[in-house]
Amino acid sequence: MGMTIAEKILAARSGHDHVVPGQLIECRTDWVLCHEITTPAALRMLEERGMDRVFDPERIVAVPDHSVPAMNIKAAKMYQKLKSWVQEKGIRHFFDVGRGGIAHVVLENTGLIKPGETLVSGDSHTCNAGALGCFATGVGSTDLAGAIYAGRVWFKVPETMRIRVTGRFKPGVGPKDLVLEVIKRIGADGANYMVMEWVGDTIDQMDMEGRFTLTNMAIEAGGKTGIIAVDDTTRAFLEARGVTPDQYTEYRSDPDARYKVDLEVDVTELEPTVAYPHIPSNGRVAGTDRIAITHAYVGSCTNGRISDLREVAAILRGRRVAEGVQMLVVPATQAVYKQAAQEGLLEVFVDAGATVSYPSCGACLGMHTGVLGPGDVCISSSNRNFVGRMGDPSAEVYLASPATVAASAVTGVITDPREFVTPEAAD
Amino acid sequence: MGMTIAEKILAARSGHDHVVPGQLIECRTDWVLCHEITTPAALRMLEERGMDRVFDPERIVAVPDHSVPAMNIKAAKMYQKLKSWVQEKGIRHFFDVGRGGIAHVVLENTGLIKPGETLVSGDSHTCNAGALGCFATGVGSTDLAGAIYAGRVWFKVPETMRIRVTGRFKPGVGPKDLVLEVIKRIGADGANYMVMEWVGDTIDQMDMEGRFTLTNMAIEAGGKTGIIAVDDTTRAFLEARGVTPDQYTEYRSDPDARYKVDLEVDVTELEPTVAYPHIPSNGRVAGTDRIAITHAYVGSCTNGRISDLREVAAILRGRRVAEGVQMLVVPATQAVYKQAAQEGLLEVFVDAGATVSYPSCGACLGMHTGVLGPGDVCISSSNRNFVGRMGDPSAEVYLASPATVAASAVTGVITDPREFVTPEAAD
Repeated sequence: MGMTIAEKILAARSGHDHVVPGQLIECRTDWVLCHEITTPAALRMLEERGMDRVFDPERIVAVPDHSVPAMNIKAAKMYQKLKSWVQEKGIRHFFDVGRGGIAHVVLENTGLIKPGETLVSGDSHTCNAGALGCFATGVGSTDLAGAIYAGRVWFKVPETMRIRVTGRFKPGVGPKDLVLEVIKRIGADGANYMVMEWVGDTIDQMDMEGRFTLTNMAIEAGGKTGIIAVDDTTRAFLEARGVTPDQYTEYRSDPDARYKVDLEVDVTELEPTVAYPHIPSNGRVAGTDRIAITHAYVGSCTNGRISDLREVAAILRGRRVAEGVQMLVVPATQAVYKQAAQEGLLEVFVDAGATVSYPSCGACLGMHTGVLGPGDVCISSSNRNFVGRMGDPSAEVYLASPATVAASAVTGVITDPREFVTPEAAD
Repeated sequence: MGMTIAEKILAARSGHDHVVPGQLIECRTDWVLCHEITTPAALRMLEERGMDRVFDPERIVAVPDHSVPAMNIKAAKMYQKLKSWVQEKGIRHFFDVGRGGIAHVVLENTGLIKPGETLVSGDSHTCNAGALGCFATGVGSTDLAGAIYAGRVWFKVPETMRIRVTGRFKPGVGPKDLVLEVIKRIGADGANYMVMEWVGDTIDQMDMEGRFTLTNMAIEAGGKTGIIAVDDTTRAFLEARGVTPDQYTEYRSDPDARYKVDLEVDVTELEPTVAYPHIPSNGRVAGTDRIAITHAYVGSCTNGRISDLREVAAILRGRRVAEGVQMLVVPATQAVYKQAAQEGLLEVFVDAGATVSYPSCGACLGMHTGVLGPGDVCISSSNRNFVGRMGDPSAEVYLASPATVAASAVTGVITDPREFVTPEAAD
């Protein structure tokens, strides 16, 4: 029987010719991604056991991103721990504060992680990198400790769900709406421990930024990871980052590969979608209810890329954020920040009355810059809207595309972005 | 006997023809400035007493700046309290998150506060506004509550110290070095409960941004406030903000006014000055000791203005922040941020490896974005370096000019900015 991309990667990295879903394997990790929140716990575990070493300093990428610049002394200590470890172990791929940003988005642009490789990290959105045709997944601190120490991790080989996407998006509709629609259909546990493999014309025509948005949110359906096969778009993206095809292996799912679920989505009639509180599967058409908001947030590893910021700027240009609405725009990395500065987008945001932050995960998980208070209502381009995710348990988070966030910020109520996006502008 | 500017303002606002130092007066407050940290306490005091009103909603300026966007739920609640009060009382001069910045710098640019007026706020750097020829001072929450309720406050008329400054700064030396030099000479309690009145050729030739840096730091010498008489520079500054001379009263100290202290400073030989831990009076010449730093901070109500950012950019352009140093640049207001974006300064900062934050007081007082951990060493353009001011009690803060901060960030050790500033460049 044939194998899926994910199965082929896991077979290659565990020294098997063939693996099947459910099989337990010990897998080599090509990369371990470390940030300052979960890594210190893993390091303490190793230190307490006298196992304080790293399997390969060249294979660890360290990026503080959750609580930097520090918002309190405890956060400052977490950062110090990561930094001193990096220095002590000679980890060169350290993207310090001011040189990095949100780890997943930093990593996808480094040219380090390549198709066919494996990546683990103590962060649930590690699946983001799957758009590069690699197997990337979040693990707990114990597995993270093992990976740091031995460069290996145990997996149960996951089943795969194939999502075939066809059709052309309407103007004002895009990858975020698609992934919210898919999660709505299958449920927030609809892909539990499965690989979500995205295929079809729509994916073929999608740029890498859109693809990362899709694989990034696999975990919001319970998925082990998301994955997309390498094509010319992937190759061009990597080439621009100094990575040529001879440096990586392209895996492709066999025609007779076994899929646990086969899902078909035609995006032709897809509407801008908003996931209502308190679960990402609670999708409805944007603007159905004109819900008043207090906060609007553009950012996160899901939607803080330059294409997202351009979409937002297109709507905010010449307009103002509604009075009483606090809008926060967070470029995902310093590179995105610089690009936005060069394109004049930052001025557009400030003119509109939005706050532009340094790259940070902070607001997305209610940890830093942009924490919600009691009763606050936020429309957010991020990935998760559980109770208390962005701050107070009584706050409400509505997940949407950057365009929907921008449109809602302007009107002060959750709004269909097509009120502002003309068919011409979107083409 | 004649009166000083400050005495004349206090006399006029308390309905006296003449006041003398030590006299207790009840004074009208033209303006009350409110931020989200000290105002909620004052409001609670009023509410508990059934005195929940404001003397004049047109005379209150509200600017959240210390802990916004919120870094935790408690901060979100403080912001909510300020915002709901503003809405309830019809306070129009509300500079919400994204529309304001650091309150003192926002206020100085509004055209609201004018020469000859009085201003109180529950913030010690309220003295900043004194550069506009007004009497501006920080008060405790009880006095703040009284001012909000009645538009009045009790003062003991302060003595005045006159500081006559002459000579021309060397390139790379400026107002921040001057104020640190003065505090070094007189001590951190050298101007206790005095008005620090700045006069002399050097002040006459100084732009408003430099003057605000001087009056801003009066409190660091224990001063009640700083003040500078109106001249053409002040008038032009105000005119650019829509305020014409017929809208304000210019007070001038009488030739026979009494000064408790008369200080003379010639800046001709003044060197770039750094205030060592843990007191602002601990000044030494920059670069005397090449002290290794972990953090470099440009910002605060003292030195987060556009001229400060330009100085920093001039040094950072084409250079990199030293490895291991976390540099944070915080434009004081959204207007400064936009100006810096337009001039390409933000790109310079990001290219250099610095983090650019939204306007915030956060790092200056260890409250938010940029809190120091144990053993951290920060060179800072801010105003106060007490134990624990910027975070952990074991962290050290060295106060300096923006140029000195930038030069130190590049080398990784506290550095005389003249290593990077040529005489031509500074002219």
